[in-house]
Amino acid sequence: MNTTENRPKVLIIGSGFGGLFAARALKRADVDIQLIARTTHHLFQPLLYQVATGILSPGEIAPATREVLARQDNVQVELGEVTAVDLDARTVTASTLGVPRTLHYDHLIVAAGANQSWFGHDEFADYAPGMKSIDDALELRGRIFGAFELAELAAAEGRTADARAHTTFVVVGAGPTGVEMAGQLAELSHRTLRHDFRHIDPRDAKIYLMDAADAVLGSFDESLQRKTRTAMEKLGVDVLLEAKVVDVDARGLDYEDADGQRHRIDALTKVWAAGVAASPLASQLADQVGLEVDRSGRIPVRPDLTLPGHPDVYVIGDMMTLDGLPGVAQVAIQQARYAAKKIGSSLGGRASLDRRAVDEPFAYFDKGNMATISRFRAIAEIGRLKVTGFVAWLLWLGVHLVYIIGFKSRITTLLHWVVSFLGRGRSERTVTQQQVFGRLAMDQVDGLAERAGRNLGWRQQGKEGRPDLD
Amino acid sequence: MNTTENRPKVLIIGSGFGGLFAARALKRADVDIQLIARTTHHLFQPLLYQVATGILSPGEIAPATREVLARQDNVQVELGEVTAVDLDARTVTASTLGVPRTLHYDHLIVAAGANQSWFGHDEFADYAPGMKSIDDALELRGRIFGAFELAELAAAEGRTADARAHTTFVVVGAGPTGVEMAGQLAELSHRTLRHDFRHIDPRDAKIYLMDAADAVLGSFDESLQRKTRTAMEKLGVDVLLEAKVVDVDARGLDYEDADGQRHRIDALTKVWAAGVAASPLASQLADQVGLEVDRSGRIPVRPDLTLPGHPDVYVIGDMMTLDGLPGVAQVAIQQARYAAKKIGSSLGGRASLDRRAVDEPFAYFDKGNMATISRFRAIAEIGRLKVTGFVAWLLWLGVHLVYIIGFKSRITTLLHWVVSFLGRGRSERTVTQQQVFGRLAMDQVDGLAERAGRNLGWRQQGKEGRPDLD
Repeated sequence: MNTTENRPKVLIIGSGFGGLFAARALKRADVDIQLIARTTHHLFQPLLYQVATGILSPGEIAPATREVLARQDNVQVELGEVTAVDLDARTVTASTLGVPRTLHYDHLIVAAGANQSWFGHDEFADYAPGMKSIDDALELRGRIFGAFELAELAAAEGRTADARAHTTFVVVGAGPTGVEMAGQLAELSHRTLRHDFRHIDPRDAKIYLMDAADAVLGSFDESLQRKTRTAMEKLGVDVLLEAKVVDVDARGLDYEDADGQRHRIDALTKVWAAGVAASPLASQLADQVGLEVDRSGRIPVRPDLTLPGHPDVYVIGDMMTLDGLPGVAQVAIQQARYAAKKIGSSLGGRASLDRRAVDEPFAYFDKGNMATISRFRAIAEIGRLKVTGFVAWLLWLGVHLVYIIGFKSRITTLLHWVVSFLGRGRSERTVTQQQVFGRLAMDQVDGLAERAGRNLGWRQQGKEGRPDLD
Repeated sequence: MNTTENRPKVLIIGSGFGGLFAARALKRADVDIQLIARTTHHLFQPLLYQVATGILSPGEIAPATREVLARQDNVQVELGEVTAVDLDARTVTASTLGVPRTLHYDHLIVAAGANQSWFGHDEFADYAPGMKSIDDALELRGRIFGAFELAELAAAEGRTADARAHTTFVVVGAGPTGVEMAGQLAELSHRTLRHDFRHIDPRDAKIYLMDAADAVLGSFDESLQRKTRTAMEKLGVDVLLEAKVVDVDARGLDYEDADGQRHRIDALTKVWAAGVAASPLASQLADQVGLEVDRSGRIPVRPDLTLPGHPDVYVIGDMMTLDGLPGVAQVAIQQARYAAKKIGSSLGGRASLDRRAVDEPFAYFDKGNMATISRFRAIAEIGRLKVTGFVAWLLWLGVHLVYIIGFKSRITTLLHWVVSFLGRGRSERTVTQQQVFGRLAMDQVDGLAERAGRNLGWRQQGKEGRPDLD
């Protein structure tokens, strides 16, 4: 890296779609880029559910950021969590393994994304993990495949109710992630695992897809919502709408229906795909410029994605709010390119970026939305065009292959899809002992913990996805 | 599964090469097989080092045992750790998530394998993890890739000695696993990561391969030992022989040379590939039949692999000792087939197995031994034939592809090899936050823990591979 003292320093926070694509878009800019993130990988979040259900390996959706950017000489990648930005001093405080340090910037792109939100009930997280990180996906993988193992044992011992609770799955949140997760759980139980057990029939598994709203895929057109709901039901998924989760514990969850009636589902495995909370950096920034974050913790940005009074600070992706833009990868990617272009054009003289004046505000070009329902079936909405079924699924396949980073991951991913969709296999179902430990929290369902005389001091799992078992 | 009360029950302990191949060899036998293991996967142990160094995903070398045996109706697979065998009562005690239960058998095949041994210094395990499980491999993956991350930060801050310690790797034990691990570490540092960093040059990394004996690959022919040593040195690996490790801590290790002189190596990452200890079941069995285990904890078996006075109990693979047979997959596989054949022939009448009298003792057919040194280079010994270089590597490739379980894993594995050996990539380097936590133990190297004011209560990691951080 040819670091020169005179080159402006662009600091990028985050290695998600926003951060990574911003760095790439500055490839030819005459700047020193520092990309800092709290994981060493980029993450293709929309495919996390496939890691959780044993289709893909972590490496396929989470390439090392450093490897992706290895040949881009003007970037250095660093491991560290940014805990604060000082807009006046133009510095950020980053912490690596707990040790703080201070970094200076000339231009700042904040793309720290969003975490899962349990709507003020963080205690649910222990029993209903979210779907936001590789750790989440592997934790859920352990719980899902572990649930069938424990059901088999329970059935062998004649504990029918326990076996039932072990093979009942509840997905909370009927957005694309929830729909895809529920669809895969149905595939797993009804097709993949069909021959794997002797005392239970995995086809008897119950899968619930639950939402407080009155529709699945709320952000899609109504006709697609209806089609998706019907398709889910055909797959054997119980769709519960206007159902508000009021309590979650090891053995199951309670919800209230539209009439305020309380119901109980005994279910070992719960997946939380309901809400998002922007990175705490959003409110930390908002405080400094006198703004208020919205109820998802997102900061309102100016039409050019900057903060008022700070034209060199861009906030992009899931942690900002602007004109009701959805929290999807395309928004982050297009905003990343816009911010990079603005920075490039501000450099004047030597920058070899496209230097046509970029005075227009950011404009989102909606390339469409899609969600898979099961193998060979998806829905897609491209402008006014609505596509469903196999054609939509092919579209989904193509688009996802394009956005998966790296040629090699594309090839192995395609292969894993052939194996899983044409075949019956799940070649990535390996569960570590670490994940088995996670499952301990759930063995209250069988009273296993008491029978083993074990005391479960399961502390808050939080965003690190690491249970503390004493 | 058509369980009939009259069918003899064959209980198999372990899902490694011994257990899995025994179950398969009994495919057509008129028996009820119960295979119980403490993981839900079979494990292709010889390729663990490739998971640790980011070439393969866990799923490729650890298919779900249940999926492998899904179509074999006479087997049921169960998750559970066998803690005791009662030879007189013909029962075993198994524990699943801490809850004990008792299983009966008519025929027993004990194939519980071996763990890593730190030769009475289990406290070394925290700092120098072994290479026996998926958890081990992922823990090491986190440490190896994490070491380079921390080195980059240390170099950026001008802490040269720390950066040096971070990029120094010591592999203890110069058997095939140690040689392969050291070779891959050299590949990683000198080739794969070459362009990934800005403040360090990964090619400066130091890799030590250390053994208390006076040769690498002690079990191979002397000419191959010499060739391997030379090849390792050409790869940039420092080979230290007659070097006995006397102490291991977070910052490095101490060893004694042949003259009894003590030396110190500052090295963040240590890999322990030195010794094995048979499953504690071996000594538990030995006690009951009045035998003594050897110093690796292995039980001496009769020439027909049974225990004296218990012709229905077979002990196979890494936990038995017989005629100096090596602890390799081939021994376990051939013993599994032998035991299955004996059980089949003992059934008389209805069994459809090959029922020719099997009165001969077990005879091992040595198909040869091999070890890879780096990409395109291996050594192999097949009877008197010695093969080295590219031809040996092709042999290695073919043999390993044959023994990897499952068509799909063969295909994706081959692809990952193409990517890693022809290309430069490591597509499976994803590290979870759980593994990042593991690395905390090592940040004493930088005094990071103290600087962060953190107290590291790192308890014994033990075989579960799960550090407890308070």
